[in-house]
Amino acid sequence: MAPPPATVVSPVITLLLRLLTFIFLMISLVILTTNTATLFVNLAEVKLRFNDVYAYRYMVAVIVLGIAYTLLQTAFAIFQVSMGKRLGGDGLYQFDFYGDKVMSYILATGAAAGFGATIDLKSVFSGGGVDQFFNKASAASSLLLLGFLSTAISSVFSSLALPKRD
Amino acid sequence: MAPPPATVVSPVITLLLRLLTFIFLMISLVILTTNTATLFVNLAEVKLRFNDVYAYRYMVAVIVLGIAYTLLQTAFAIFQVSMGKRLGGDGLYQFDFYGDKVMSYILATGAAAGFGATIDLKSVFSGGGVDQFFNKASAASSLLLLGFLSTAISSVFSSLALPKRD
Repeated sequence: MAPPPATVVSPVITLLLRLLTFIFLMISLVILTTNTATLFVNLAEVKLRFNDVYAYRYMVAVIVLGIAYTLLQTAFAIFQVSMGKRLGGDGLYQFDFYGDKVMSYILATGAAAGFGATIDLKSVFSGGGVDQFFNKASAASSLLLLGFLSTAISSVFSSLALPKRD
Repeated sequence: MAPPPATVVSPVITLLLRLLTFIFLMISLVILTTNTATLFVNLAEVKLRFNDVYAYRYMVAVIVLGIAYTLLQTAFAIFQVSMGKRLGGDGLYQFDFYGDKVMSYILATGAAAGFGATIDLKSVFSGGGVDQFFNKASAASSLLLLGFLSTAISSVFSSLALPKRD
């Protein structure tokens, strides 16, 4: 027998989840990359940016990867909503399943690395400008965490939507 | 029609994966909690332990949670291997699916927080004893990462084993 169209939720909800993920990741990227602080070390001005902290560099890489993947999935979802059918057939369910799984793990590690570095670095350094720098990094990590959560929900749906074998 | 026993891999492989996860997490926990370093601050000796770093405290919590979950799953897997059938019926497939998913995300964040904090703290502090402290923390993070990977593989299997609905 032909497998039934194994959609668990409405394609509109799938699309909304992707758009939400995209928005979270974009705002996180903007906050993280525009975040700067000025330090005074031995009377010299030192500019602190995201690329001075390894964890934040990893976060940027993760977010860029996440945005690229989410844009691709958004395109698929728009196609499905407007055309009423799935692009690519059964193979794409497999792609969704493994793609969402791997991408949600990557986003989770990005957010966790951001929080891990921020909280402990903040307890080492202190002072006005640096505090704000780490607070903004926390905000970026929180948004990345939200992006992870929406991708994790997509991953539950794409697992449940895996076509019934046998 | 009655749903077929939806096992994707042999129960023995399932059991071996759980045991592997358990071993990784146990060694990680031992390395992390026995890790100490002695610092000299203003002529006073300061003992550095895992609970001085927030990320390592989070790691310990994650590992303990992971060990408890893995022990439970190991018990289920031993029952299945020895009795030839699954304990609890269909409900347990759902438990496996969501349990493995959530637990693998939690383990992933633990490992990432550990790496994030370690790498950036190591670039701030330096010196013999402290370097070794952070190296051991890296080793514990790596083992936690391995524990995450084996749980992620279990999660793929438990997603594929979800009983066929309809």
